[in-house]
Amino acid sequence: MRALTAKGAATRQRIVAGAALLMREHGPANVGLDDIRAATATSKSQLFHYFADGKADLLLAVATYEAEQVLAEQQPMLGDLTSWPKWEAWRLRVIERYDAQRQKCPLTALTAQLGMANPAVREIITDLYERWHAHIAAGVRALRESGEIGAGVDADDAATEILTAITGGATLLQATDRISYLEVSLRQAIDGLRRPPE
Amino acid sequence: MRALTAKGAATRQRIVAGAALLMREHGPANVGLDDIRAATATSKSQLFHYFADGKADLLLAVATYEAEQVLAEQQPMLGDLTSWPKWEAWRLRVIERYDAQRQKCPLTALTAQLGMANPAVREIITDLYERWHAHIAAGVRALRESGEIGAGVDADDAATEILTAITGGATLLQATDRISYLEVSLRQAIDGLRRPPE
Repeated sequence: MRALTAKGAATRQRIVAGAALLMREHGPANVGLDDIRAATATSKSQLFHYFADGKADLLLAVATYEAEQVLAEQQPMLGDLTSWPKWEAWRLRVIERYDAQRQKCPLTALTAQLGMANPAVREIITDLYERWHAHIAAGVRALRESGEIGAGVDADDAATEILTAITGGATLLQATDRISYLEVSLRQAIDGLRRPPE
Repeated sequence: MRALTAKGAATRQRIVAGAALLMREHGPANVGLDDIRAATATSKSQLFHYFADGKADLLLAVATYEAEQVLAEQQPMLGDLTSWPKWEAWRLRVIERYDAQRQKCPLTALTAQLGMANPAVREIITDLYERWHAHIAAGVRALRESGEIGAGVDADDAATEILTAITGGATLLQATDRISYLEVSLRQAIDGLRRPPE
């Protein structure tokens, strides 16, 4: 992406947010460039200026935006997992978010549309998981440093356990429309932190 | 599906297995009815006899078949999780299976093609998860009954934790091409059985 002025970046962001909203409502496959132009009051030349490759460019930009939303919707809790009550507040937020979303994950719809074989898509998703994992691992370390959990807990492994509990629970939610898998998996994974190692 | 004679069922199964092989190799979107007829030496009228709705019917039959394969590839271990060595053998089989498959999950390709909004697809996937969960829960109960793990372990919750560790690890494998998430999540989830409850 070329460097943008502050005004240019704001315009681009406005188009992306508008496109994201349309795609959440109608599905990425059913939203055309004309719909986006109309909804965001953008001219053809403006759209081309920011997204030279047209819809493929815009889909990637919306996927990046939606990946940001996944983390943003867990904040401020996710960035401050420094005590049990804060972990509990985060856990409830995660459940609430997936319960509201159910089978309509905007990011899944976008990656299905773009295809996971697309390296740019993989980079967006890999980056999301890495940042998500880093936040959780920082929270595990905070508990360890304050003596709330054992000194022997491996923060990165524990964070992987918790993150896969979420993605696995979300995968089963998408397939079965039941949130109980996610509720149980996340609770179990977090409770696992409290248990002493064997 | 109408009732089939034994011979009819065998023919149908032969077509489905042949179609599954083609779809694994070329992707479900790139396999036509003519390819399947050629590969399985089936006439048009035979194909129509078993799959009246054509490709949509066949895709569902292949999805059912591939869902069976997911469990079959974990046998005989999955059906006999009665001791720690057997759990360990199963764990290794699961990792081996996903490591071989990597990002090429045949069932994911089929469900993407058919769409998770399709109730028949959802039923296939929900049924797969329920049977998978039941096998794991039976294994947890076996450990509990032989005193290998605490009497207080909830078998269904523990099975959910282990199943979501697999689906979550597999989701991250598909997105990132890294198997380490799955290795860690499954090991942690199984180790969790050994830890006494808080």
